[in-house]
Amino acid sequence: MPRRVRMGMVGGGRGAFIGAVHRIAARMDDGVELVCGALSSDPARARESGGDLLLAPDRCYGSFMEMIEAEGARPEDERMEFVSIVTPNDTHHPIAKAALEAGFHVLSDKPATLDLAQAKDLRRIVGETGLLYGLTHTYTGYPMVRQARHMVRKGEIGAVRSVVVEYPQGWLATAVEESGQKQAAWRTDPARAGAAGCMGDIGTHAESLAEFVTGLSIDELAADLTTFVPGRRVDDEGSVLLRFAGGAKGVLHASQVSAGCENNLSLRVSGETGGLEWRQTEPNTLLVRSLDGPALVYRTGSGYLCDRAQGASRVPPGHPEGYLEAFANIYREFADDVRAHKDASGPGEVGPEASVYPSIEDGVRSMAFVEAVVASSRANAAWTRLDLD
Amino acid sequence: MPRRVRMGMVGGGRGAFIGAVHRIAARMDDGVELVCGALSSDPARARESGGDLLLAPDRCYGSFMEMIEAEGARPEDERMEFVSIVTPNDTHHPIAKAALEAGFHVLSDKPATLDLAQAKDLRRIVGETGLLYGLTHTYTGYPMVRQARHMVRKGEIGAVRSVVVEYPQGWLATAVEESGQKQAAWRTDPARAGAAGCMGDIGTHAESLAEFVTGLSIDELAADLTTFVPGRRVDDEGSVLLRFAGGAKGVLHASQVSAGCENNLSLRVSGETGGLEWRQTEPNTLLVRSLDGPALVYRTGSGYLCDRAQGASRVPPGHPEGYLEAFANIYREFADDVRAHKDASGPGEVGPEASVYPSIEDGVRSMAFVEAVVASSRANAAWTRLDLD
Amino acid sequence: MPRRVRMGMVGGGRGAFIGAVHRIAARMDDGVELVCGALSSDPARARESGGDLLLAPDRCYGSFMEMIEAEGARPEDERMEFVSIVTPNDTHHPIAKAALEAGFHVLSDKPATLDLAQAKDLRRIVGETGLLYGLTHTYTGYPMVRQARHMVRKGEIGAVRSVVVEYPQGWLATAVEESGQKQAAWRTDPARAGAAGCMGDIGTHAESLAEFVTGLSIDELAADLTTFVPGRRVDDEGSVLLRFAGGAKGVLHASQVSAGCENNLSLRVSGETGGLEWRQTEPNTLLVRSLDGPALVYRTGSGYLCDRAQGASRVPPGHPEGYLEAFANIYREFADDVRAHKDASGPGEVGPEASVYPSIEDGVRSMAFVEAVVASSRANAAWTRLDLD
Amino acid sequence: MPRRVRMGMVGGGRGAFIGAVHRIAARMDDGVELVCGALSSDPARARESGGDLLLAPDRCYGSFMEMIEAEGARPEDERMEFVSIVTPNDTHHPIAKAALEAGFHVLSDKPATLDLAQAKDLRRIVGETGLLYGLTHTYTGYPMVRQARHMVRKGEIGAVRSVVVEYPQGWLATAVEESGQKQAAWRTDPARAGAAGCMGDIGTHAESLAEFVTGLSIDELAADLTTFVPGRRVDDEGSVLLRFAGGAKGVLHASQVSAGCENNLSLRVSGETGGLEWRQTEPNTLLVRSLDGPALVYRTGSGYLCDRAQGASRVPPGHPEGYLEAFANIYREFADDVRAHKDASGPGEVGPEASVYPSIEDGVRSMAFVEAVVASSRANAAWTRLDLD
Repeated sequence: MPRRVRMGMVGGGRGAFIGAVHRIAARMDDGVELVCGALSSDPARARESGGDLLLAPDRCYGSFMEMIEAEGARPEDERMEFVSIVTPNDTHHPIAKAALEAGFHVLSDKPATLDLAQAKDLRRIVGETGLLYGLTHTYTGYPMVRQARHMVRKGEIGAVRSVVVEYPQGWLATAVEESGQKQAAWRTDPARAGAAGCMGDIGTHAESLAEFVTGLSIDELAADLTTFVPGRRVDDEGSVLLRFAGGAKGVLHASQVSAGCENNLSLRVSGETGGLEWRQTEPNTLLVRSLDGPALVYRTGSGYLCDRAQGASRVPPGHPEGYLEAFANIYREFADDVRAHKDASGPGEVGPEASVYPSIEDGVRSMAFVEAVVASSRANAAWTRLDLD
Repeated sequence: MPRRVRMGMVGGGRGAFIGAVHRIAARMDDGVELVCGALSSDPARARESGGDLLLAPDRCYGSFMEMIEAEGARPEDERMEFVSIVTPNDTHHPIAKAALEAGFHVLSDKPATLDLAQAKDLRRIVGETGLLYGLTHTYTGYPMVRQARHMVRKGEIGAVRSVVVEYPQGWLATAVEESGQKQAAWRTDPARAGAAGCMGDIGTHAESLAEFVTGLSIDELAADLTTFVPGRRVDDEGSVLLRFAGGAKGVLHASQVSAGCENNLSLRVSGETGGLEWRQTEPNTLLVRSLDGPALVYRTGSGYLCDRAQGASRVPPGHPEGYLEAFANIYREFADDVRAHKDASGPGEVGPEASVYPSIEDGVRSMAFVEAVVASSRANAAWTRLDLD
Repeated sequence: MPRRVRMGMVGGGRGAFIGAVHRIAARMDDGVELVCGALSSDPARARESGGDLLLAPDRCYGSFMEMIEAEGARPEDERMEFVSIVTPNDTHHPIAKAALEAGFHVLSDKPATLDLAQAKDLRRIVGETGLLYGLTHTYTGYPMVRQARHMVRKGEIGAVRSVVVEYPQGWLATAVEESGQKQAAWRTDPARAGAAGCMGDIGTHAESLAEFVTGLSIDELAADLTTFVPGRRVDDEGSVLLRFAGGAKGVLHASQVSAGCENNLSLRVSGETGGLEWRQTEPNTLLVRSLDGPALVYRTGSGYLCDRAQGASRVPPGHPEGYLEAFANIYREFADDVRAHKDASGPGEVGPEASVYPSIEDGVRSMAFVEAVVASSRANAAWTRLDLD
Repeated sequence: MPRRVRMGMVGGGRGAFIGAVHRIAARMDDGVELVCGALSSDPARARESGGDLLLAPDRCYGSFMEMIEAEGARPEDERMEFVSIVTPNDTHHPIAKAALEAGFHVLSDKPATLDLAQAKDLRRIVGETGLLYGLTHTYTGYPMVRQARHMVRKGEIGAVRSVVVEYPQGWLATAVEESGQKQAAWRTDPARAGAAGCMGDIGTHAESLAEFVTGLSIDELAADLTTFVPGRRVDDEGSVLLRFAGGAKGVLHASQVSAGCENNLSLRVSGETGGLEWRQTEPNTLLVRSLDGPALVYRTGSGYLCDRAQGASRVPPGHPEGYLEAFANIYREFADDVRAHKDASGPGEVGPEASVYPSIEDGVRSMAFVEAVVASSRANAAWTRLDLD
């Protein structure tokens, strides 16, 4: 087993949700060690939360700036090597920027930033520093999503014609943000979540999944967003017509008000000679269609899968794997890159070329998607190009 | 058992497909008797086809006009009572018009006509004659579709917020129309099928299903149609943003080039307090969601279903029913209405109020949908209102 | 289309259930005409029921003997050609015997007779008369069941190793027979249903399906039957260990007290190089497994199916078919055989060799199964051989 | 977060499979720390394997006895607190015995021992030492299995009538043990695996699951085991009739030669007023049936689940969880008990009463099941009682 990579975490203290998920994912393969944290924006709470996690008291920091400075002052073989960012969206950019500029790699929860301008700025910084930056779009970590991507790339369904991607959730079907639900509160606050609500939170997952699997880029889109729950300040559902570079078409539907739906993300890709269908609720199955024969049921862990899909499993076929394992696959790949980056003797010899976890470029794409969706919807679903420059 | 209603059929002779389906549906409950036919546009073939079906030789007609005239000359208790139209789209209007004007009820395959103007004309004729007109949108005949409609009407999922309806098929994924496939040939010929290809053929099924279940009317739409197969003269896939009267939203996707898909029609309706999901590939199941509890699996034939859903089953729960039974449900209701119409002493005392099979009004709606979809797509997905006046 | 075969029905009058199913099945392909009936054991009710079905008054008979005699006296090209028996089990043998001995073919609801001795007697009569005899084990009519049979025969899963077949129902989970439920009353009365309750009613379906698909014969079995509902006079659940000729093994479970189950018949066959799985609740799918590759999803109506499976569909792929169509496939084959029997110039030139609907031999097997199951259970699950001689 | 419990591992070195699974499970909630190991029966390989896992060199032991002695000599707050046993079956007893007698708790892979006599001896030792002993029957750790157990206990399906449990696998469909597959080699060697092959390896999982969910004990059974693969020295498939204390019945089928099956463990429990169905391939769903209403789809993580089922999830509803999480639930509970055991001031104040992971008593039950199955099968499926005394 390789050495453990040292991680510092920003956010994820008491009362948070996604921080614990990141920590489980980081820990799963024993390749990452949490050595320090600035776990809350409240300094006292941050330190207490560090104690909860059994961190060394002197590495429980009161703020991310304090963490970055103090860790930078430690010996190189002891200080944290990368920062995991698990805070609300509005703080992603300043934390990532500070970390990168201080020489630390960054693995950030999605979306990359609060808006497109910030994402582009971050892209510039990543480029200038030459450091690693990853985005935890969990669904890209599923073995069968990676298999799907592989099959499209290999031409196994021919040139892609169309994509149907949906993500209905139901947890915001009523105004839970008014009753003190913390997760709902910040996600429906434009100042903290960004211009889009549902489209920023889960529409980006759908967009990311579609582009990840097909390898195609959305050129332009026409979006119709709606706010169904009275008083809510952001969209809670939307449908988007997609046009990809090269002529493929698509439709994306995301909703957080579909009563009774969990995280019913699904993807259907049609190509000239076949098609693929995947559903997050039963993630260990990939349905593969051809022009004339029976559909094939590909299953996680099987010997007939591509190397990357097989490598994304920790147990033999028939043992279901889930969300945490998908998440851990991203952490594992990122940790491998951190090790490789350190070991490389010079530029160009290492990098995330072989990795498939989403990059800052994908982060820019998602933010461009969000801004285009919002702009299109405000213009009554006028076609709007993604601004990626 | 009530007396058998006498039916004449136009189309459906040798080499046709849907005519045989209509005949099985008509026959299933023994309430309809096929007494005559003009089964092909070719007179000789028409007569031979009548012989195939063991029709009386003098009632195997060479053309629909011949049939209408000859049957009209027979004694009232012997002549056909309604005409079943199972020809390509371009002939629906003239046949229906002739039949209605000669005093015969009409049950027509969908779409009602070749274009919207014809549909409106037919609506006028139906109104003026006071005769019965039905449209065999098969999917409305499924027990669980009727249950879904019932539950929405009863408010069991609250006010409808959104609808996602999809109909991917794969049989036109290649240019089969160029290799002599008869069904494909006329469906991809605008002169015979109408201005839309996929959208006219199956997009209308999706539109019809969405409106049937929700009871909502599409106000306006934005459509992006595509022709993926080179040389094809009509669209073979499209996605449409929908806005319903009253504020509900929707998205409709239809494709005939989704390799390996059969008739994967699916519908998901979300309301303020619950949701419904139905799939034609497993039509005996309706998934019912609520805000907080477990989803419920409603099954065909069960005692807890509404009367109309129960009445749409011929066998006890657990015996799967399919497409032909759904079709037969439309025939049964129509035959009941024909009997009631005859028995009624005067206008207003009988009619299809209690029936739910699609009417000429639904036919007009579908044609308005098709024309709006085509117009919107030509205008780069500009919002386009349905012209229903 | 060939001429219609003339059918007389015994049983299936007012208040009955399965008779209507038979009539729909007989009518579906327009190859059978119901010309007469003795529709109830009560003569008045029998005649009224005939009127309900619009039968000619002089062919609504008061008893099956009356029907057999009167029809035998009619001209050959007018009299009924076969008798459909849809009465409770205890009358199957006398009716079939009388019909056969009077020269009429017989298509009987299952089980063939009340007990094994009767079944063997009937086998003798069928043999001696040279007439046709069929048994409507519905599930053998499903296209995918026929495909499964075909694949086993072709060796596509290698030599069969084992069979797991289950049929849980829930409709007898409480003592509904005590509250006047007519179907339950006779099925739980040993005098009318036979020595076994659940095992006779649906255990035989499971046994029949397993033997139909695998082509293997049960040699011996060990059964443990239970009566769970207090006061019930027959078994309402049981599990059986099976040993087939040639060394394959199996297990069969049937229950009529599995609360909330419909007709959840399922079959899983494992062979040396592959396996098959089918479920009656979703009958249009057959799952095909191999040693190493992805499972394949075979679907009704597809072009890759065997001829017999394709021929068992009336609609293109993707249009679900169900129980009535499966039933109708048996009627269609039987009617074909009746026509062929009549047209044959001599013995040996025609017969049900090409047909796959269950024969009197299968009926004997099922009754031997029932008797062996009951005997084994009474002997505390001692191994008991099927008595087929 | 509570302190980390210190674990030593026996087995699980280079080339092993299940050891890595245990380590991931142990690590998932950060409540267990692997402090030492005797990771192979080969001393050199054991030490190298410890280095692979970044263990302190002086705690990489060459044998389990060495580990137990050396750890016992360390200060109490530093030495390992429990031993995780992940070796082949034949070594479970000596390792567990040595560990317990040296004062260490034991968490063992299943089965508890090689045979029943060993299991009873271990039960005695556990009782005498008062130490904790747990068995990692993974499937008992799934949230929906725990929910099922809860519902049966609460009487939500009434008194249990019957159980159908199946576990078909396909990985031993050919003689892979002859081609050097290590996992297959020891599992088909009676000296290492025990008297039963398939029944010991996965039949015990099925037995354990059935008893865990229903709370019922198997009284007697009748088993028919088979060895399908020529040359194999143990059974590779079997079916078993079950009789539970109190009158419930059951049937158990396990196979390792069902070509193409993964770990298709499924359980169906029927009670007087309802039923439950669960499948390991889609473990996040529990189907709940009632006498008359629609079936309910219970899903992992939902707010309507029992506390223990909710507590067994680490992520919100709709994020699938799998095998590793189920495994980790057992480790978490065991670690909690280890902490509680240490903190208790005296006997009787702490213990695994509240825990649900399988105990040595369950281990004895499984071994009694295995011996009864083998004895019954040798006696031609004679009824055989479980020897639990």
